[in-house]
Amino acid sequence: MTQNVTSPTQQCIFCAIVAGQAEASVVYEDETVIAFMCLHPVTPGHLLVIPRKHAVGLEDLDGPTGAHVWSVGHDMSRALRRSDLNCEGINLFVCDGEAAFQTVFHFHLHVIPRYTGDGWTIVPDEVERERSLLDADAQTVRNAIALTQ
Amino acid sequence: MTQNVTSPTQQCIFCAIVAGQAEASVVYEDETVIAFMCLHPVTPGHLLVIPRKHAVGLEDLDGPTGAHVWSVGHDMSRALRRSDLNCEGINLFVCDGEAAFQTVFHFHLHVIPRYTGDGWTIVPDEVERERSLLDADAQTVRNAIALTQ
Repeated sequence: MTQNVTSPTQQCIFCAIVAGQAEASVVYEDETVIAFMCLHPVTPGHLLVIPRKHAVGLEDLDGPTGAHVWSVGHDMSRALRRSDLNCEGINLFVCDGEAAFQTVFHFHLHVIPRYTGDGWTIVPDEVERERSLLDADAQTVRNAIALTQ
Repeated sequence: MTQNVTSPTQQCIFCAIVAGQAEASVVYEDETVIAFMCLHPVTPGHLLVIPRKHAVGLEDLDGPTGAHVWSVGHDMSRALRRSDLNCEGINLFVCDGEAAFQTVFHFHLHVIPRYTGDGWTIVPDEVERERSLLDADAQTVRNAIALTQ
């Protein structure tokens, strides 16, 4: 039962950054979020926006906090575009769950400046899907929307 | 000067979907946004959330509209988690600019359900970056934040 009496701060590197107990190169902070350079950047300028309050992912992140994380990510994107990093594009990326590449289980929005030929690639194996299958997928999702309300 | 008198609707497949002039498997819509299944899904259930009003990317997308796109993407993520698609994770992904994999130049948020072993991979070539370099990156971004205000 140890987990129940251990605070997120004691377990989570991002909570430690929020608490000022771990090093970070901060670019922006306010009452709700903090933005800092990613320690393992996929390109120079790669930064993360996180909520101060611990949330694992999209399931336990409350709506207003999520919207604020987004807004700060949007602002950071505009800053990167205007910075001396001279980036040519931006990826915003959320990894929610181990199957979706999440490795630190404190919600974070990646803001990744992109440069032609920067070597960051995705292997999406995408093919056009038949309309009948798309319609069936859409029905499945519409059925589930009711479960979220 | 033809571009100046051609409306986005005449040029843009997503504007055509908004106008009901192109086919889409819609899962959600309101006054500001529409969400529909991606025609070239990287996994089954991959959907897009777009603003009805044409915006190319993060530069010309207004803040409130962007925050609403995010909120609907958050809702769709929760729906996918509860759906019969039985996904195990979610990626949210924005591609802003050709260098960042953007192919349709009407802003869209990808909501991608993930499944263990689904074959969608990224090749990030990520290595830990020295603190002195991260601090320099952070200073460069902080300098640019002032330019966005």
